Amino acid sequence: MRRKLRMGMVGGGEGAFIGAVHRMAANLDGQIDLVCGAFSHDPDCSLRSGQALYLPAERCYQSYQQMMQQEAALPEDVRMDFVVIVTPNHLHFPVAVEAIKYGFHVLSDKPATLNVEEVLELRSLIVDSGLLYGITQTYTGYPMVKEARARVQSGELGNIRKVVVEYTQGWLAAQQAEADNKQAAWRLDPKQAGISSCMADIGVHAFNLVEYISGLTAAALCADIGNVVAGRSMDDDGAVFLKFDQGARGTLLASQVAIGEENTLSIRLYGDKASLSWSHQDPNTLVIKYNDKPSLVLRTGGAVGSMANANTRLPAGHPEGYIEAFANLYRNFASQIQSRLLGETLSAQALDVPGIDEAVRGMVFIEQVVTAGNSETKWHVIPQH
Amino acid sequence: MRRKLRMGMVGGGEGAFIGAVHRMAANLDGQIDLVCGAFSHDPDCSLRSGQALYLPAERCYQSYQQMMQQEAALPEDVRMDFVVIVTPNHLHFPVAVEAIKYGFHVLSDKPATLNVEEVLELRSLIVDSGLLYGITQTYTGYPMVKEARARVQSGELGNIRKVVVEYTQGWLAAQQAEADNKQAAWRLDPKQAGISSCMADIGVHAFNLVEYISGLTAAALCADIGNVVAGRSMDDDGAVFLKFDQGARGTLLASQVAIGEENTLSIRLYGDKASLSWSHQDPNTLVIKYNDKPSLVLRTGGAVGSMANANTRLPAGHPEGYIEAFANLYRNFASQIQSRLLGETLSAQALDVPGIDEAVRGMVFIEQVVTAGNSETKWHVIPQH
Amino acid sequence: MRRKLRMGMVGGGEGAFIGAVHRMAANLDGQIDLVCGAFSHDPDCSLRSGQALYLPAERCYQSYQQMMQQEAALPEDVRMDFVVIVTPNHLHFPVAVEAIKYGFHVLSDKPATLNVEEVLELRSLIVDSGLLYGITQTYTGYPMVKEARARVQSGELGNIRKVVVEYTQGWLAAQQAEADNKQAAWRLDPKQAGISSCMADIGVHAFNLVEYISGLTAAALCADIGNVVAGRSMDDDGAVFLKFDQGARGTLLASQVAIGEENTLSIRLYGDKASLSWSHQDPNTLVIKYNDKPSLVLRTGGAVGSMANANTRLPAGHPEGYIEAFANLYRNFASQIQSRLLGETLSAQALDVPGIDEAVRGMVFIEQVVTAGNSETKWHVIPQH
Amino acid sequence: MRRKLRMGMVGGGEGAFIGAVHRMAANLDGQIDLVCGAFSHDPDCSLRSGQALYLPAERCYQSYQQMMQQEAALPEDVRMDFVVIVTPNHLHFPVAVEAIKYGFHVLSDKPATLNVEEVLELRSLIVDSGLLYGITQTYTGYPMVKEARARVQSGELGNIRKVVVEYTQGWLAAQQAEADNKQAAWRLDPKQAGISSCMADIGVHAFNLVEYISGLTAAALCADIGNVVAGRSMDDDGAVFLKFDQGARGTLLASQVAIGEENTLSIRLYGDKASLSWSHQDPNTLVIKYNDKPSLVLRTGGAVGSMANANTRLPAGHPEGYIEAFANLYRNFASQIQSRLLGETLSAQALDVPGIDEAVRGMVFIEQVVTAGNSETKWHVIPQH
Repeated sequence: MRRKLRMGMVGGGEGAFIGAVHRMAANLDGQIDLVCGAFSHDPDCSLRSGQALYLPAERCYQSYQQMMQQEAALPEDVRMDFVVIVTPNHLHFPVAVEAIKYGFHVLSDKPATLNVEEVLELRSLIVDSGLLYGITQTYTGYPMVKEARARVQSGELGNIRKVVVEYTQGWLAAQQAEADNKQAAWRLDPKQAGISSCMADIGVHAFNLVEYISGLTAAALCADIGNVVAGRSMDDDGAVFLKFDQGARGTLLASQVAIGEENTLSIRLYGDKASLSWSHQDPNTLVIKYNDKPSLVLRTGGAVGSMANANTRLPAGHPEGYIEAFANLYRNFASQIQSRLLGETLSAQALDVPGIDEAVRGMVFIEQVVTAGNSETKWHVIPQH
Repeated sequence: MRRKLRMGMVGGGEGAFIGAVHRMAANLDGQIDLVCGAFSHDPDCSLRSGQALYLPAERCYQSYQQMMQQEAALPEDVRMDFVVIVTPNHLHFPVAVEAIKYGFHVLSDKPATLNVEEVLELRSLIVDSGLLYGITQTYTGYPMVKEARARVQSGELGNIRKVVVEYTQGWLAAQQAEADNKQAAWRLDPKQAGISSCMADIGVHAFNLVEYISGLTAAALCADIGNVVAGRSMDDDGAVFLKFDQGARGTLLASQVAIGEENTLSIRLYGDKASLSWSHQDPNTLVIKYNDKPSLVLRTGGAVGSMANANTRLPAGHPEGYIEAFANLYRNFASQIQSRLLGETLSAQALDVPGIDEAVRGMVFIEQVVTAGNSETKWHVIPQH
Repeated sequence: MRRKLRMGMVGGGEGAFIGAVHRMAANLDGQIDLVCGAFSHDPDCSLRSGQALYLPAERCYQSYQQMMQQEAALPEDVRMDFVVIVTPNHLHFPVAVEAIKYGFHVLSDKPATLNVEEVLELRSLIVDSGLLYGITQTYTGYPMVKEARARVQSGELGNIRKVVVEYTQGWLAAQQAEADNKQAAWRLDPKQAGISSCMADIGVHAFNLVEYISGLTAAALCADIGNVVAGRSMDDDGAVFLKFDQGARGTLLASQVAIGEENTLSIRLYGDKASLSWSHQDPNTLVIKYNDKPSLVLRTGGAVGSMANANTRLPAGHPEGYIEAFANLYRNFASQIQSRLLGETLSAQALDVPGIDEAVRGMVFIEQVVTAGNSETKWHVIPQH
Repeated sequence: MRRKLRMGMVGGGEGAFIGAVHRMAANLDGQIDLVCGAFSHDPDCSLRSGQALYLPAERCYQSYQQMMQQEAALPEDVRMDFVVIVTPNHLHFPVAVEAIKYGFHVLSDKPATLNVEEVLELRSLIVDSGLLYGITQTYTGYPMVKEARARVQSGELGNIRKVVVEYTQGWLAAQQAEADNKQAAWRLDPKQAGISSCMADIGVHAFNLVEYISGLTAAALCADIGNVVAGRSMDDDGAVFLKFDQGARGTLLASQVAIGEENTLSIRLYGDKASLSWSHQDPNTLVIKYNDKPSLVLRTGGAVGSMANANTRLPAGHPEGYIEAFANLYRNFASQIQSRLLGETLSAQALDVPGIDEAVRGMVFIEQVVTAGNSETKWHVIPQH
């Protein structure tokens, strides 16, 4: 019989942003209990953070290493089932490695690692261990994104010719952003964030969304990236041309200095039969357009397919948002673990969680887009690992 | 020190709709545990439903009477803190009475009772017991609804002259709706729903929203209501003129047969200085308009006031929806209970939950709108109880 | 062979608003020449206005009476073919009578007269004279309004159950509006405007739009109208319940004090198979909604019917607006005149101009809505003349 | 004293598209008479077309050469004042040259010529002759585009950092488009259209709009263009990175195969203080966004600046569209001619018409974007002629 799953968290202590979002996503469906955490590199902060979450002191750990070790030593019906990693980027890889070492499944925030080399190593570890790995490319969790993917798969758009995707924000437009804001500071610090700010933080979401919905594989890119705000050592803005295996072309825009934009993620796919568009600003709507027929407006909870419906909680017209999309990743990843525990085959829905392959694609994209942005050569191949 | 609160649920068993929504809302912030329930009048169903929610069998009760009695007998650090009522309408009142009898706070779905007489009795019981009572007029939970109220309170709109509010749905447009759908069946059955379908189910939300945002008190109404689909004994559509104490006039539309509408709730207030509009279809946006200046677009998470921000969980541009709004009612009601437990004064935010006064207003509205709809007289006074 | 038609104008001199709109509408298609006018009751102003429009002095008349008389005396291939009336309301009737007396077709701004008695007399004169009469209920000129009507006629919506229509403006929200603005002054002066401001100026457009699109006939109404701004003797705001012959019910909102609204005209029709919505703020879009299928978005110039296409000038995506809609009335009315001149039968398109019957309906609506608004009785029959 | 201006047209005969649009734009304000034309290379078609426009046979010319010669020989108060050129692209240059030779002002559709060499020669002829030249980069005619430019000029956005512009259409998505459609056929025929289809037809509008609104000058570009539909020898889709003199970067998208798109032109500018966005699908709205304040929504006819108002004909809320924008170019160009005739200085408004300098920029853009699209080199300088 199913039981509630037990989650441990690394990162997400006081003042963090994404950790709280992960917890709400994990809570929503009442299928997962947070049972322990190493919430901060500062042991006091970790303890305070855990107690504010009603955890007993003995399961508020002083380090992620301690957490893995001590949880592994607990009885099977007490210890955590999986680890969620919500630290700044540079710790995603070492924490995942440690979790795998102690036999815990991993759900990681993105990007998976700091570079391609690490992510390929991580993939080997995952494959060898047989453990489950998920990465929170959150936007794939939206029902209408899943509907878009299903419509492309069913051939409704015909052959995809062109893709236009964008993720723009304005929050780093001001020079003092990094001084004023803890979230900004680490994202603009190469030691914590890696080689890229804008493309690693949000460009990679746009890239993932394109490959997820279209089913295409990007084969080459050309990039124009820039440090718009003076004094930054990493990209805060950029644009990319994409060429796909199957002949389609695309453009990808990402910016952290697009003043007035909130989290403006949108995508359009143009096939030779129809096109579709989806926007994060109106996430429960999917529009399909034709040249010679009225456009169709599909709505979450309405006349849509089974994968969209399986990821919907409310009747049409009651808006579902970012936390619900995030919770879909949690619910589907939890479903994978439950199937393991019960010895069941994974359903298509359970499998519909970005995993290590998407993690690899993301890191390859980030490395190549930075390389291309700094190059006078036009096209750069995107390696298939 | 704060502890997690313990919730018991009456109703919400297998196949129910709103019970699951209440549980997600209660779960979201990790501040409330569901510890027991009487999920169905059918004891087997109640047990199955509770076990699917990971409750121990001994706290899956056979009736709400049993639940109150046995929970009251549990040690103080085990028994539930409050009861949430998510049954069909006709049970809201008796369950609340029973809960009060045993000293439990009550959070009830709307409408509070089947008629004004009952709700006035309920108010007496609440007042006499000193217990806390909340009613889930959900839409007041949206951050931009709270911002709208704050803007009106601050005088930004001047004197309100006109209000236009609407809640339209299409799901009962077909004659077979009640045969096909358990949710439809009880709402169209006077024994379970009371004297009204459309006005009691959704019209009352529109009415509550007007009084919540505007701060005005409706003094009289004129109504045209109808049973559009043949064979129904209750209203499935209607429109109302409203007169307010302070001279403003309003119109309220509600329909369950507006084919193609999902849960289309919208409100506009026109003052003598400015107007505002909010729509449930785009709930994170609030528009303020003037005659001689550009319109302002306010956004959840953006440049808004403290009450809106206190009811927001994400940065601007990450859409928050219905569950988050619902969870704001839970969070604020939980805050009331926590304050009681800790002997603290209630904050403005904690107090910002619809309570017994709103419950009374809702029942008065429902009774008067049905009376007026069946009358050839134009205006009907709305009594102030 | 077709020739350009010759138009004479009464009203529309310096400082007028609607006269210039009529001229642009008449100019657009190059089928009509303005050849003369009595542009003002002030002969100097009439002359100045005419000369600014490149008219010879001898055809800038000192009064409409003089214009009718002298034009009638000109050779057939010189004199005007029809008169357009763009004065304040109180002159619509006498000018039309004078035009008919001299054998000129009439295109009149609305409302046709000051009361029902006059409009019935006007109808007799028209019928007896055999002359053509059009009334500029402008909004019926939009291609997507015509498409809406065609969709209803084809049965696509099934039986209409409910209609929601609204025309709101904010320009008279301030007390000083009538002092500051010539357009406001005459609309709020009963001597020039008649018994109603808001309902006669814009409510009547909403009423006409409902009957035009739905094909229904309103049979009774209940009204709440008010003089919101102190000191006014006429309505500046109101709401109406409508009952239609065929059992449908409707609501109509109109306001001149809805601060921040521009010319917000919108209409929704709910049938038992589908619903449709159209808004003047996005006039080239028509949405059709279902309960169990995706919504359809129809667009001017796109996949729409023949009547919409015949009233469209541009490819889809090049916005057409108010002047084009207005020009459709002119083009179709001109088509009627051309058919007379050439002895041809009128096409369906030529006939698609609001005429004397719509003029009568409008006056009946205005009278009854004011009567009902001032009455304590709920329902008032709308007479069928 | 002002008189009506006299216009001659080259091109625009039966079956043409843009000629009719030009005539409506010229008609709208009643300031211009079409007096003659060489409407087709087929003399019979030219005659039939002219007579359908109510022109006398003697001014329906057999060729543009004949028209220039014979009109020049007419008395000064009869002959045309200016020529409008609405032929396929390859004739724009020779017709303009001929008009200049005979001393007529020229208003030309875009692109001005087939290549940069020709347009530089044209510029010399214009400068030497002292004649007036306008080019119908239509979208600069929209009031809210003018407002956008004014807001940038006033410094409201601060320094522009990034520009995103797009013009997408779907009408050439199908392979048979060129066979079925006269408009498609010439645009995809290099002999008539020049070296580019997509970029010369619509990309150039996007480019012009960027430089018009931003006041920036594009200095270099990188392009990915393609012939998406098999068998075409010219681009039907493309994307461009732009670098501007002042450090801003931009992206430009254009496509004729974006199925379902109508004439989707949109632009966003991001400065270091604010951003703005405008879309042709909602042309009467301009949005200004900030990071720390509510967004502003500006509307045609509302609280906007003098240049926008001078190009607006209606009160706010009465939609103005493409023909009105086009007519603004005509009105302002006519104003230039009137000023010449009256010996007056040109007003800022009269000067606000795209002219020979914009024509040169357009041709340089078209040539460079095709060069860059066919090159493996990333960046290509845009010469400043």
